[in-house]
Amino acid sequence: MDIIAEITIVPIGIGVSLSKYVASVHSILEDTGLKVELHSNGTNIQGDYDVIMAALKKCHEKLHNEMDTPRVLTYMKIGSRTDKNKDMLDKAKTVRMHMEKNKSE
Amino acid sequence: MDIIAEITIVPIGIGVSLSKYVASVHSILEDTGLKVELHSNGTNIQGDYDVIMAALKKCHEKLHNEMDTPRVLTYMKIGSRTDKNKDMLDKAKTVRMHMEKNKSE
Amino acid sequence: MDIIAEITIVPIGIGVSLSKYVASVHSILEDTGLKVELHSNGTNIQGDYDVIMAALKKCHEKLHNEMDTPRVLTYMKIGSRTDKNKDMLDKAKTVRMHMEKNKSE
Amino acid sequence: MDIIAEITIVPIGIGVSLSKYVASVHSILEDTGLKVELHSNGTNIQGDYDVIMAALKKCHEKLHNEMDTPRVLTYMKIGSRTDKNKDMLDKAKTVRMHMEKNKSE
Repeated sequence: MDIIAEITIVPIGIGVSLSKYVASVHSILEDTGLKVELHSNGTNIQGDYDVIMAALKKCHEKLHNEMDTPRVLTYMKIGSRTDKNKDMLDKAKTVRMHMEKNKSE
Repeated sequence: MDIIAEITIVPIGIGVSLSKYVASVHSILEDTGLKVELHSNGTNIQGDYDVIMAALKKCHEKLHNEMDTPRVLTYMKIGSRTDKNKDMLDKAKTVRMHMEKNKSE
Repeated sequence: MDIIAEITIVPIGIGVSLSKYVASVHSILEDTGLKVELHSNGTNIQGDYDVIMAALKKCHEKLHNEMDTPRVLTYMKIGSRTDKNKDMLDKAKTVRMHMEKNKSE
Repeated sequence: MDIIAEITIVPIGIGVSLSKYVASVHSILEDTGLKVELHSNGTNIQGDYDVIMAALKKCHEKLHNEMDTPRVLTYMKIGSRTDKNKDMLDKAKTVRMHMEKNKSE
């Protein structure tokens, strides 16, 4: 099953600066070879459900076992659809196209 | 890896009334035999990461393949911790205990 | 505008045990007088959008100003509908009703 | 109170294609004049809490009153911090910097 997902991983109990930890888990997501998009509030990723879920598990495990993080919270969006195949990055493009159309009306 | 998760599944393209669909996928989560807690905005579930993720996949597949849902969005929280084992239902209890303590101070 | 919302507040940079902080902000939500439901992954609340958003702001401010929390993350779901009025606590009931119906079919 | 937020608005009951609706509410967020970043799973926005919450209310109202959407679900992340001022778009940059550093180690 192909999905478009968003993953936001929050390490808890390691202080206030999270970016080193976020970088480390973002690398795991990139290493899947899937399409990823890093933004200000998380990482978007498109591909096979099982591959993404296995990568996310690795992220939690790495934070716990290699980076001494006692607690990890992940916030995730998962979208699947059967009506059409859509590239993740085309979603924002389609929205922008509609915005242009609305302005010109 | 044991997790405490929250799953909110939103079927898209089947109209405005979602409860029949939500019931159907909540049953799949209950059928895992794991501890589940249905509330006004989702289902909490505690147990093994792989078991929960396999159940969630089944939810999407059932909505697509058996209930004609063209599009499914899931919102999920996933919490894991190594500092202690905690029963999901004790979380709200601990919060309430602190509330009582605050009131009596 | 009436909404049914879910609020999960995560204080960052104060260590691994969050329940004292969660209790404190849950009290602010209860003090609105609105219907609230505390569960294992957050607080559900039903009522006027402006009242809820003002209460949430107070939660962030209390954590920052009175409880020395350097960073606060909130995860929120907001639902509004015009097709019917529905009590928050009836949502889970309706889902359970559908589950009973499915079992008896 | 300044926040970095992510807003994902899901119109329910208007069919399976959401981009026209998403474009319409994204325009409301852009019209605040605040910094916004549209991505595959939502809109990031940085600025004053009250301004953002007022804009989000307008989004729900527009969908209900002008675009015949019976039901609207919003998923939101809200981050505030007192330890430093950070530009929203620098968050991804800092993460990337840490990734480069990790690779060279």
